[in-house]
Amino acid sequence: MTTTETGRALSEALNPGMEAALEARYGHLVPGLAEGIVDFAYGRQYARPGLSLRDRYLATIAALAALGGQTRPQLKVNIAAGRKAGLTRQEIGEVIWQMSLYGGFPSAINALNAALEVFDEEGAEDV
Amino acid sequence: MTTTETGRALSEALNPGMEAALEARYGHLVPGLAEGIVDFAYGRQYARPGLSLRDRYLATIAALAALGGQTRPQLKVNIAAGRKAGLTRQEIGEVIWQMSLYGGFPSAINALNAALEVFDEEGAEDV
Amino acid sequence: MTTTETGRALSEALNPGMEAALEARYGHLVPGLAEGIVDFAYGRQYARPGLSLRDRYLATIAALAALGGQTRPQLKVNIAAGRKAGLTRQEIGEVIWQMSLYGGFPSAINALNAALEVFDEEGAEDV
Amino acid sequence: MTTTETGRALSEALNPGMEAALEARYGHLVPGLAEGIVDFAYGRQYARPGLSLRDRYLATIAALAALGGQTRPQLKVNIAAGRKAGLTRQEIGEVIWQMSLYGGFPSAINALNAALEVFDEEGAEDV
Amino acid sequence: MTTTETGRALSEALNPGMEAALEARYGHLVPGLAEGIVDFAYGRQYARPGLSLRDRYLATIAALAALGGQTRPQLKVNIAAGRKAGLTRQEIGEVIWQMSLYGGFPSAINALNAALEVFDEEGAEDV
Amino acid sequence: MTTTETGRALSEALNPGMEAALEARYGHLVPGLAEGIVDFAYGRQYARPGLSLRDRYLATIAALAALGGQTRPQLKVNIAAGRKAGLTRQEIGEVIWQMSLYGGFPSAINALNAALEVFDEEGAEDV
Repeated sequence: MTTTETGRALSEALNPGMEAALEARYGHLVPGLAEGIVDFAYGRQYARPGLSLRDRYLATIAALAALGGQTRPQLKVNIAAGRKAGLTRQEIGEVIWQMSLYGGFPSAINALNAALEVFDEEGAEDV
Repeated sequence: MTTTETGRALSEALNPGMEAALEARYGHLVPGLAEGIVDFAYGRQYARPGLSLRDRYLATIAALAALGGQTRPQLKVNIAAGRKAGLTRQEIGEVIWQMSLYGGFPSAINALNAALEVFDEEGAEDV
Repeated sequence: MTTTETGRALSEALNPGMEAALEARYGHLVPGLAEGIVDFAYGRQYARPGLSLRDRYLATIAALAALGGQTRPQLKVNIAAGRKAGLTRQEIGEVIWQMSLYGGFPSAINALNAALEVFDEEGAEDV
Repeated sequence: MTTTETGRALSEALNPGMEAALEARYGHLVPGLAEGIVDFAYGRQYARPGLSLRDRYLATIAALAALGGQTRPQLKVNIAAGRKAGLTRQEIGEVIWQMSLYGGFPSAINALNAALEVFDEEGAEDV
Repeated sequence: MTTTETGRALSEALNPGMEAALEARYGHLVPGLAEGIVDFAYGRQYARPGLSLRDRYLATIAALAALGGQTRPQLKVNIAAGRKAGLTRQEIGEVIWQMSLYGGFPSAINALNAALEVFDEEGAEDV
Repeated sequence: MTTTETGRALSEALNPGMEAALEARYGHLVPGLAEGIVDFAYGRQYARPGLSLRDRYLATIAALAALGGQTRPQLKVNIAAGRKAGLTRQEIGEVIWQMSLYGGFPSAINALNAALEVFDEEGAEDV
């Protein structure tokens, strides 16, 4: 399998229809953007061996929380995907709160708010 | 145990002498800084249940790599501590490279260079 | 008094009910977060001697303005708290505008907009 | 001509009424802000020889896209101004997508969304 | 007095020879840079009424500490200038440590190191 | 040609030996990193139609200057590459100075220093 095919398989498993949605939204302006994301972000990054998918989402949530609220939509997408990859709500809460040490308290609080929104959309569950 | 005591126990286990070193270096200027770090960063963050120490270092390495080279000394300290907490060289390489997606390629390359320096100081080992 | 007690006294004086609100919103996900903020941010930072509360808010407003719009909610909270700690509207306008030198013009303009919103909510006053 | 006069001429050509709008909104709080922007940003920066106005907007769009969504309003203003200075939609799409390498994928996607909003407001045109 | 003249007077009082040094270093590449800094940063910012010079340096040190080590040379220059404008070592230590809340602990520690270097260069003094 | 082949051709034309150097340095830790950069950064970004290589380097220099000194090594590499792609020293000086508006004055000055180092290494030339 090429990295594009590997990435597409993973992308469709995690976010069905994402490539088509990217193509529909951005393809007329930036041809190849959707395939580039599938190939690089999924095929050459998330699909790599050496680190579990669950760990990769943990790392991504940590990074986006530390970088601050400017990537809130992507933070929410990755929190939701991390949940599917096995992260508990508690683990997500913990890692975000820990980021107060690196990205500051305001960014951590903003990221917790994003997480609470994702959890609300998931419906009831014991944390 | 108070959070300060819990933090001190963990801090000494991970970085023996760190609190005293902080006190010696910064205590005359900012009294209480060393205890504040021990209490908050170790006692109220790294010592928390809900996320393993290994996962906490994975998250911290991810965040510092994404934030860029401005925290290079701390990145190296955390990579070394993460190794002691069970992260493999491969896992550290993977998580940093993944951060190219969030903090950009230059930051990821800089962080890999920091990791290689830590690994060199560790001495020979199969990755 | 412990740092937690000192922090709680200051926190309640500045933002009555904040600790309870943090606990209610985040406590089920991150137990201890509210106390951690009270202890570290208020007890071990804002309550410290060596710099007046008014100066501390001036510094915080400067930092959040320079860091950019990603912490807008916290910027507004700190502008409002800084007003209570004695900062004039003019001083707040000045310090934000000065931050155009360090965080760029767009961030400064965004921060001025946040300040204007706080001042509007305060009601009429001569600047 | 002074730099203020040069800046005013360019500012009015690019964004008619901007100085007056800045003065009306911020002048009571920060006297001189509007003239400062006209003099420094327009008179001493954008009006300089040595780099075309089209290139200057290309650079600004790149920078704001890489810095992340925190300057979204300014990004949109500069995309609109860049269009008037001769940048095609395709060039703007290209430069933003390229910034995924430096500011990360989330920032690039957010910036593309800002660009699409500007293009929608422009009305129909072949990219 | 024009803003350039006001800025020049303040710049020479605070940093004698700075404008000439900027001109010598950058003027052949970016003509007008030195005057632009004198006019905008000094004449239109630091020389403004409404906030004392001491407070302006406090704010700048806070912002540069929160933004992280990438501006270390400028942070040191501003700490030294802030000292001349009346800030005590303790106040500078306090404001930097407070920035751990907003820019994270690594940036705060790095900034404290920069401050200690400035104080060392000053020679002995009781904090 | 695949995107990898296209990227490799461009990469070798611009930076002969870069892929091999990346492989030698990072390949044992992160297998595939070198090919990933060649494919994504060169094949799927810099080699794209729609924006000239000269414009792409202008944008990259702008972004790295605005992001601050944390990517100084990459900034220097891109300034050198931008020179080969047709950017004049003056244009590079202009675009960096312009970034004082977006990334702040300290970052712009740091980036100018990086540019001067590159120009010094190039040897004598009239700006």
